[in-house]
Amino acid sequence: MPANIEVQAEPGALVHDVIERAGLSLVLPCGGQGRCGRCLVVVKEGRVRRRSVVRLTPQDIEQGYALACQTLLEGDATIYVPPQEMSLVRPESAASAGKVAPLAITCDHARAPWVEKYHLRIEPPSLADNTADWERLQREAARQYGLRGLTTTPAIMSKLASVLREANWDVTLVVERGTWIEPDAMPRLIDIRPGDTTAQTIGLAVDIGTTSNVVYMADLQQGTLIDHASAYNGQIVCGEDIISRIIYAKRPGGLEHLQKLVIDTINGLIDHMLDRQGLRAEDIYLVTVAGNTTMIHLFLGLDPQYIRLEPYIPTVNHPVPVRAGDLGLHVHPEATVDCLPGVGAYVGGDITAGVLRSEMSEQEAITLFIDVGTNGELVLGNSEWLISCACSAGPAFEGAGVTSGMRATQGAIEEVWINRETAEPTYRTIGNAPPQGICGSGMISLLGEMFITGVI
Amino acid sequence: MPANIEVQAEPGALVHDVIERAGLSLVLPCGGQGRCGRCLVVVKEGRVRRRSVVRLTPQDIEQGYALACQTLLEGDATIYVPPQEMSLVRPESAASAGKVAPLAITCDHARAPWVEKYHLRIEPPSLADNTADWERLQREAARQYGLRGLTTTPAIMSKLASVLREANWDVTLVVERGTWIEPDAMPRLIDIRPGDTTAQTIGLAVDIGTTSNVVYMADLQQGTLIDHASAYNGQIVCGEDIISRIIYAKRPGGLEHLQKLVIDTINGLIDHMLDRQGLRAEDIYLVTVAGNTTMIHLFLGLDPQYIRLEPYIPTVNHPVPVRAGDLGLHVHPEATVDCLPGVGAYVGGDITAGVLRSEMSEQEAITLFIDVGTNGELVLGNSEWLISCACSAGPAFEGAGVTSGMRATQGAIEEVWINRETAEPTYRTIGNAPPQGICGSGMISLLGEMFITGVI
Repeated sequence: MPANIEVQAEPGALVHDVIERAGLSLVLPCGGQGRCGRCLVVVKEGRVRRRSVVRLTPQDIEQGYALACQTLLEGDATIYVPPQEMSLVRPESAASAGKVAPLAITCDHARAPWVEKYHLRIEPPSLADNTADWERLQREAARQYGLRGLTTTPAIMSKLASVLREANWDVTLVVERGTWIEPDAMPRLIDIRPGDTTAQTIGLAVDIGTTSNVVYMADLQQGTLIDHASAYNGQIVCGEDIISRIIYAKRPGGLEHLQKLVIDTINGLIDHMLDRQGLRAEDIYLVTVAGNTTMIHLFLGLDPQYIRLEPYIPTVNHPVPVRAGDLGLHVHPEATVDCLPGVGAYVGGDITAGVLRSEMSEQEAITLFIDVGTNGELVLGNSEWLISCACSAGPAFEGAGVTSGMRATQGAIEEVWINRETAEPTYRTIGNAPPQGICGSGMISLLGEMFITGVI
Repeated sequence: MPANIEVQAEPGALVHDVIERAGLSLVLPCGGQGRCGRCLVVVKEGRVRRRSVVRLTPQDIEQGYALACQTLLEGDATIYVPPQEMSLVRPESAASAGKVAPLAITCDHARAPWVEKYHLRIEPPSLADNTADWERLQREAARQYGLRGLTTTPAIMSKLASVLREANWDVTLVVERGTWIEPDAMPRLIDIRPGDTTAQTIGLAVDIGTTSNVVYMADLQQGTLIDHASAYNGQIVCGEDIISRIIYAKRPGGLEHLQKLVIDTINGLIDHMLDRQGLRAEDIYLVTVAGNTTMIHLFLGLDPQYIRLEPYIPTVNHPVPVRAGDLGLHVHPEATVDCLPGVGAYVGGDITAGVLRSEMSEQEAITLFIDVGTNGELVLGNSEWLISCACSAGPAFEGAGVTSGMRATQGAIEEVWINRETAEPTYRTIGNAPPQGICGSGMISLLGEMFITGVI
């Protein structure tokens, strides 16, 4: 291994597991199926057993090449692990707070946010009026703001007596009104803070892409954007496309690991913004999430297997709201986490979000909406009808399924020309660097030239 | 210590804490205030510091007596701990299941139980009908039983795909309708079980007394009692009366300890019944609790301090329902735990329960309701008006505040006669055993005789 790391392992251990145990990150673009050949290592010494060699030639094997996801140790071994594309897991730089533009919000959610704050001054109890703390707070919330039937959580109930007294009966109530699932639910007190903190009420919008995750921080009452940050989805090491991750989720502990990776990615972005804005996790009271159906299943810890198997059935298209504390998100534990509704196994809430935001569903003109990501989705229609379809996009042409395929980064062949007479190929790489592999646009260019010149 | 137990302790450690660490249980009837003198130990060797000696004579101190709750170690010491009244913490025997009479339930709760079961057969998905699992279940629940707007929990969502398939789409839904706090709430799916389990729907009624805890197991649909069991409240070791426990709750970790003790007591009773009935904790879907205001605060982990201090303010009189999983009760984690409403700091939900059960609030005749427990409460009234008051009862006369006071058990002086001429007293003890102390009825008898004979 690099840096001469030594690890103890039992015979029969999977080489990839041992490498992870050594603290190294060896990506599995195909989710550990032995299909993409990207987790190639060299066995310098010692005996191993190769479960699958479909990606290896007899010469490769003779030279010691092995796939880490398919190779078992049979005794002591010395293994060379090539350096990984570390850029894949480095967060992208986020826009600085000052430059962020106000959001032009047009949806109902902004016009009537689920979470609102109320500043409340309460008359302290006396022998003449010895109503209990909670009933007193309910009474004043109803009298001063018409908030009737206020309910609350065990955590608030536990700290109520001390917060009211320490704040000298001058507090801010953070109240969640009904959500979409129960628009007429009783208002729910999710936090109580000393003094008047009504100036700002913060919520997050999260976009969970198969490749990239983006978090926006917004003021729910002003309708303005406060900050945003993005990073690659930490699940990439377990597979680059959706199918690879669904297969990875079948391993023992695989689903839990994938869920932890995406939660960790999002928490990293939240922590970054909290730090930059001088805020605390408890200041965030609402989280809205968009993502494709598989990403939402992995985010919520739902088994995604049946999305992949005919007849392609998700557990849920429109998940019920979840408490942030149950997911381990770095926001107020009582904050509601709401995932936008999807349409089916391969048309998720990210598409719903795009359709809503573009307002194509409110126009008379027929519009085509295209979302090209790791998967690509199309929506066609207007205010009267909408149809949608989806197919693999990015990694389908790139790293995962193509020998020498790679992401469109430094050294990727991005365009190819074939001489009509000599059939001699020339090419251009990204950054004019020495060629490392071929990316999606290079593949399309190559296929086009081969067709034009009659090679195929 | 008995059995020659040795314990390591730092200088300055409280003797009572060290004794607990040794695995012995030394009761603190007054909650560790040094007021009742019941945690007397003998310092055989070594140096200690006595914080309070109001209960000790100079002779006592010379003989090595010390109060474990008021004495600090100053170095190595040998301490004699007298045997405790272990009967206090032994569960009472419960009535055998066969002999339990059916409940004559008359309240609305029984007529429309919050939790109901529905047997559901669902058409499996196909390419022609690829609705997601959850939306399919919702659709069928609405179609077959008119259950509209069904919502659920993250735990159910996680296991939905596998339960539906393993059960071959033939399941029982356990649904909680709205509770008192939101009677019109959306129905909430709290469990899904393979096959048809609608024959029985189990709930518990729990009576948390300061001294005794009782748990009843009932079939919510039949309105019949299945089993019951009782035991002393495990909190007794931290104080016998309410005030002592409120004082104990002020110690660091005291409130958490008291909560754990009562939850452990109730869980012990539940486990006992589950075992006897061949049931599992997950079979119990609803818990209703009655208790005085302080007991309910300690059960829910709410700070009871302000109940004791003028103007005597509880955190809450009618607690909002809590998830059993949040309390650690041995029932289904999604079961709702509902505490009956109290009236004030010293008139709790146990009295409300008694008034409702006796139906005195529905009668024209004026009725007096008396509840004599560790505290005593009276309610007077009829269908038009009700008034209530409360005072200390049991331990006020017994162990806690009286030198030589004790509970009405073996050896307690329960009646006293004073000779009118010689003023010579005679007495009777419970069980005709040698006198150990004096109990409440003995105190009243003694005071009466002293008054009649002119001693006072």
